[in-house]
Amino acid sequence: MAASTPTDPQAPDPAGAAGTERPRRAGYRRLPVQQRREQLIAVALELFGSRPPEEVTLDDVAEAAGASRPLVYRYFAGGKQQLYEAALRSAAQELTSRFHVTGGGTPTEQLADVLGRYFSFVADHDAGYGALLRGGSVVETARTGAIVDEVRRAALRRTLRYLGVGEAGPRLTLLVRAWISVVEASALSWLDEGRQIPREELCAWLIDQFTAMAGATAVHDPQTAEVLHRLLALETEDSPAGVLLTRLRAVWG
Amino acid sequence: MAASTPTDPQAPDPAGAAGTERPRRAGYRRLPVQQRREQLIAVALELFGSRPPEEVTLDDVAEAAGASRPLVYRYFAGGKQQLYEAALRSAAQELTSRFHVTGGGTPTEQLADVLGRYFSFVADHDAGYGALLRGGSVVETARTGAIVDEVRRAALRRTLRYLGVGEAGPRLTLLVRAWISVVEASALSWLDEGRQIPREELCAWLIDQFTAMAGATAVHDPQTAEVLHRLLALETEDSPAGVLLTRLRAVWG
Repeated sequence: MAASTPTDPQAPDPAGAAGTERPRRAGYRRLPVQQRREQLIAVALELFGSRPPEEVTLDDVAEAAGASRPLVYRYFAGGKQQLYEAALRSAAQELTSRFHVTGGGTPTEQLADVLGRYFSFVADHDAGYGALLRGGSVVETARTGAIVDEVRRAALRRTLRYLGVGEAGPRLTLLVRAWISVVEASALSWLDEGRQIPREELCAWLIDQFTAMAGATAVHDPQTAEVLHRLLALETEDSPAGVLLTRLRAVWG
Repeated sequence: MAASTPTDPQAPDPAGAAGTERPRRAGYRRLPVQQRREQLIAVALELFGSRPPEEVTLDDVAEAAGASRPLVYRYFAGGKQQLYEAALRSAAQELTSRFHVTGGGTPTEQLADVLGRYFSFVADHDAGYGALLRGGSVVETARTGAIVDEVRRAALRRTLRYLGVGEAGPRLTLLVRAWISVVEASALSWLDEGRQIPREELCAWLIDQFTAMAGATAVHDPQTAEVLHRLLALETEDSPAGVLLTRLRAVWG
């Protein structure tokens, strides 16, 4: 039993059921259930990301997946909307899973590590990232909007935890939220503009934006000042924050 | 002729046409055409902003406006989607009209002036601003999304012109786009969090974010460095940028 891989559930034969003469496509083939599900989601994410979601039909997804329309319905009985939400949720989970800090290093080195993984998702799932962030919806704004919002909330929570903050005040929260919006806007803009700026440079710029934005928040807010002071003590001359501060002295004079 | 004000076009009597017994609501009254149109748009913006747009019906709009459903259709034959787009467009125009610089002062003083007007729109049109920015759509993502994008493009163009930049390179463009996203995220967050931070302080923080973000971009990009150098030469000790730089020296040490 354990050795048998489940394959696509039997789907009603579209030609037979509808009584049309369209032959079963030569390209159709059976896939293990989980693999098929993932394939449908990947194909859907690609399509929903590259065209306005309302212009994508379930037939488009079936065709791009080399599957029949009834087969797609067997996996997503709720049709296009369910498939769309599953695709967004899949992208959201994958993105969120990259938020944790793995290596050592100074705070800005660790942040660079996380951002690098975030941007490898952006680079590899171009259309999917756009679909997730531009979100919108096919039918239900509230529910698809909630998927994107949950990614943002996860990013906010992780960042605050990483900053060693238990209870963040409104100004520190605003700083982190604002920086997350900078990351998102930059990623979308980077994709839109054909990746003109090298990815590594964009990530380095985003790390510097965090440091600079935190500095300009620290002058307004004691909590941010305390956090920044603590983090800067961990930085070195060669770390992103160390290099930025040296170069900023030249800019500010 | 000139003295007669056009009023609501004759709408079919809903009770009569449908043969129901619902009496004509006592609250219905005639309004001049332009005034009615503006009233319907204002009511729609309020409703679309405070609930997911797909949950708002044309009947809700008619009821809130003290008008009949057929009357609303006389003004917006395309129904809910047309009314929704008209409402977003109205908010977009109003917001965009505030982007120009009016007074004198240093660059950051002028920016504070524009931001103050932007935030008075946010404060006065709470739900409408949310509807515009969270946009999404009832039916057509591409078209409603385009209305929001046009506001952003207008903000980008105005800011670059204001910075005295003819042809902006990718890094300077990215800086301005990123800052616009900070303004939007902060405004939405400010509304969501019940306006915890005083509006004037939020605007001051946003001006400082612009200066700080520009500084951290200048270390990566000669064009931004040139623009920043030119603008900083116009600042005074007491201007927002002047005060920030003094205080940043204490933070960065």
